[in-house]
Amino acid sequence: MNSAISPIPPLAIDYPAWVQTVVDWERAYTTDEERMRLAIRMSRENVERDTGGPFGAAVFELESGRLVAVGMNSVVRLNNCMLHGEGMAVMMAQSRLDCFTLRSDDGPAYELVTSCEPCAMCLGTTLWSGVRRLVCGAGRDDAVKLGFDEGPVFPESYAYLEARGIRVVHGMLRDEANAVLELYRARQGPIYNG
Amino acid sequence: MNSAISPIPPLAIDYPAWVQTVVDWERAYTTDEERMRLAIRMSRENVERDTGGPFGAAVFELESGRLVAVGMNSVVRLNNCMLHGEGMAVMMAQSRLDCFTLRSDDGPAYELVTSCEPCAMCLGTTLWSGVRRLVCGAGRDDAVKLGFDEGPVFPESYAYLEARGIRVVHGMLRDEANAVLELYRARQGPIYNG
Repeated sequence: MNSAISPIPPLAIDYPAWVQTVVDWERAYTTDEERMRLAIRMSRENVERDTGGPFGAAVFELESGRLVAVGMNSVVRLNNCMLHGEGMAVMMAQSRLDCFTLRSDDGPAYELVTSCEPCAMCLGTTLWSGVRRLVCGAGRDDAVKLGFDEGPVFPESYAYLEARGIRVVHGMLRDEANAVLELYRARQGPIYNG
Repeated sequence: MNSAISPIPPLAIDYPAWVQTVVDWERAYTTDEERMRLAIRMSRENVERDTGGPFGAAVFELESGRLVAVGMNSVVRLNNCMLHGEGMAVMMAQSRLDCFTLRSDDGPAYELVTSCEPCAMCLGTTLWSGVRRLVCGAGRDDAVKLGFDEGPVFPESYAYLEARGIRVVHGMLRDEANAVLELYRARQGPIYNG
């Protein structure tokens, strides 16, 4: 077969520069609220610094509260429709831990905390990520009200995760999380794929 | 706030080296069968060269058959649970076209061809990718029979895509596609996240 050099160089996926000055990687995030506030902080900084959509997330060790990775919507910044906040957090966590799953028989358990209930893609990502717990801030309806499509997520989708041993918590600091969606609306941020 | 340098360097996502010698980027893939055979070829090479799971995909210009990007399961190779064949193809296509969506009012339409029906994550990715058509080879049942979990995908999930203007074709060269799943089983390839 005739062949040619691939026209696509390797992708580089990185954090926006502000992560270096905003995130405290050393402290333990011991309560659900502290963890959710970090996810919301990621969403808010992303909006205020014009680096992406109003969605943030973080992966923690479930017991210790050690921060493993943060994520923030980077779809437009990096021209990549998969880089929602949750996906970015999961990819970065797996890169840091050098493993394609966060689930193991002998290591710590992990959780994904997201400032908004996941879209269909990110709900699937949650399943493959290996986390044991998913904590959500704002609701699907909040995102839809803003004009974002959340895709085919049904009650059965969450039941599927629960059946695979992933506990799901909804509405953690929902008002604080939703305030960032409202901020994005007020700033007339782009509703891509709307 | 105290801060520390991010402990996570940028991710690099690249093709396995064999893509350089296997893929013909110059020819037009004019029929559905030719396009699916390329997706299946990606799955087969990935298995035979031990670079990942038995799933391949490709993005084409719908009308012309111009190849934009290929994808192959790279979950284990790159320690990243999001790098299914479809996601890899979509990310690479968006990188090449320098846009976070393949849908535009004035440009060509695109399609995603995958050697196996998408999991829940990749079905969501299909929605955000901007493709107008999704063509599947092997079926969900074929992957499940092998031990792979496909996640919460329901008939309503496909209906959701169709309602958003994405045509879906199932069972294109299913036997040829499924033969690679059988090959993977015979070689006792790892069933991660099983």
